[in-house]
Amino acid sequence: MKHVELRSTERIDDLLTYDLKIIQSDEVFSFSMDAVLLGRFASVPPKGRVLDLCTGNGVVPLLLSTRTRADIWGVEIQERLADMAKRNAALNGLEGRLHMVEGDLKTIHSELGHGQFDVVTVNPPYLPVPNGEQNTNAHFAAARHEIHCTLEDVIAACAKQVKAGGKVAMVHRPTRLVDICTLMRQYRIEPKRIRFVHARAGEEAMMVLIEGIKDGKPEIRTLPPLIVYATEKDYCQELQEIYYGGRSALAFAEEDAAELSEMRE
Amino acid sequence: MKHVELRSTERIDDLLTYDLKIIQSDEVFSFSMDAVLLGRFASVPPKGRVLDLCTGNGVVPLLLSTRTRADIWGVEIQERLADMAKRNAALNGLEGRLHMVEGDLKTIHSELGHGQFDVVTVNPPYLPVPNGEQNTNAHFAAARHEIHCTLEDVIAACAKQVKAGGKVAMVHRPTRLVDICTLMRQYRIEPKRIRFVHARAGEEAMMVLIEGIKDGKPEIRTLPPLIVYATEKDYCQELQEIYYGGRSALAFAEEDAAELSEMRE
Repeated sequence: MKHVELRSTERIDDLLTYDLKIIQSDEVFSFSMDAVLLGRFASVPPKGRVLDLCTGNGVVPLLLSTRTRADIWGVEIQERLADMAKRNAALNGLEGRLHMVEGDLKTIHSELGHGQFDVVTVNPPYLPVPNGEQNTNAHFAAARHEIHCTLEDVIAACAKQVKAGGKVAMVHRPTRLVDICTLMRQYRIEPKRIRFVHARAGEEAMMVLIEGIKDGKPEIRTLPPLIVYATEKDYCQELQEIYYGGRSALAFAEEDAAELSEMRE
Repeated sequence: MKHVELRSTERIDDLLTYDLKIIQSDEVFSFSMDAVLLGRFASVPPKGRVLDLCTGNGVVPLLLSTRTRADIWGVEIQERLADMAKRNAALNGLEGRLHMVEGDLKTIHSELGHGQFDVVTVNPPYLPVPNGEQNTNAHFAAARHEIHCTLEDVIAACAKQVKAGGKVAMVHRPTRLVDICTLMRQYRIEPKRIRFVHARAGEEAMMVLIEGIKDGKPEIRTLPPLIVYATEKDYCQELQEIYYGGRSALAFAEEDAAELSEMRE
């Protein structure tokens, strides 16, 4: 592990079971289940060029780096987070192929070009800009609300960056399903794979993973649902393997339960 | 049960556990799970006017009649099936409020008017018109392939028939999800509730149920998935209740086992 500077409130965590470390800060940004699922769901080429928009502290590029030898770019608009993402690449000795950039996805094509990526991933802010109440922490507000970019901005940027036949993978709230489908098609990213995530078997979906192909043929596959909890407190096998390498860990699951119930609100 | 004429190859079956009878013919049309699920999924008003397009032998109106006191119209383009649908209404003594019409959904508004229905349901043909092979049975071909109407024709007809604020419920193949979402929105039927049906927990969806509201506000709820088989051979509880009135095959088996062991004592 390389030595990197930590700023106030930051700490270094293990990134699940991947032999990776990650700098986080509860004051600014900590990764959550949506990033983890996106990092597993997205199709990646064995090598080539991958781009992650709204990268935050760069957690999705770190996760993707375990599945591909591709060069991975990350774009983040908030200076504090972009800086954290750069240090996260260095911390794991991945600065040679993880390229973290501070920038705005609406204009980043002027720096990264058009149609230069095999795959684009994005975990965008989910919530519309509120009229009244909004998280007073500007970092949280920007990560959660469509302050810097709308869903259409995000999909337009994905469409600009991905090459013809390349893939775009996104995680979002399922309440936006129709917006996502219509905007993807409008920007010629044809949705091809979709997976819904439900906290429990009898509950409505709380998350959707969707992948499209630039100029792909219409026809989408709906994958088996991911049911997060197999029992009252235990993750399903699939998530236990991701989070604990197959070891059941009730204590961890309890911590995450709080996070999940927050997401469902 | 009223007396009605049966035509060659026709038989009278029980319609699940609903105290209803249904005329079917393996040569022409027998209801399947998609109709059953649509008949349960669709929101119905306690009274008012409901319309079922592509009604076939009128199975969906029969099923809906158990959930509402509304008058229900059914429209079917094939003479033989429309006739069967009329006899099915009569067979169950429901000819007073089940109105089965032979007609083409593309032009039926000239007979039924515009925006006259609280709810429209439809179980349309799923498959594109094939280039080469097609079922040589014209009845099957018309029920399965988009011969008489495309998906856009169907959604346009639903939009014409439903009143503002009324609901449109459809069952279809999930591969057409993006087409359904974009066409519904294009015809101002905003998708509001969706449910995917999977044969087994680890398999891709094989059916989708979707309901929209004419001029509704964008935001869709993804209901818990319906997993048809709970075990290798047994339906899930929800389907057992629909098909066998809640008494599971397992329960029967357990009763039998208890009886048997009693007998042995």
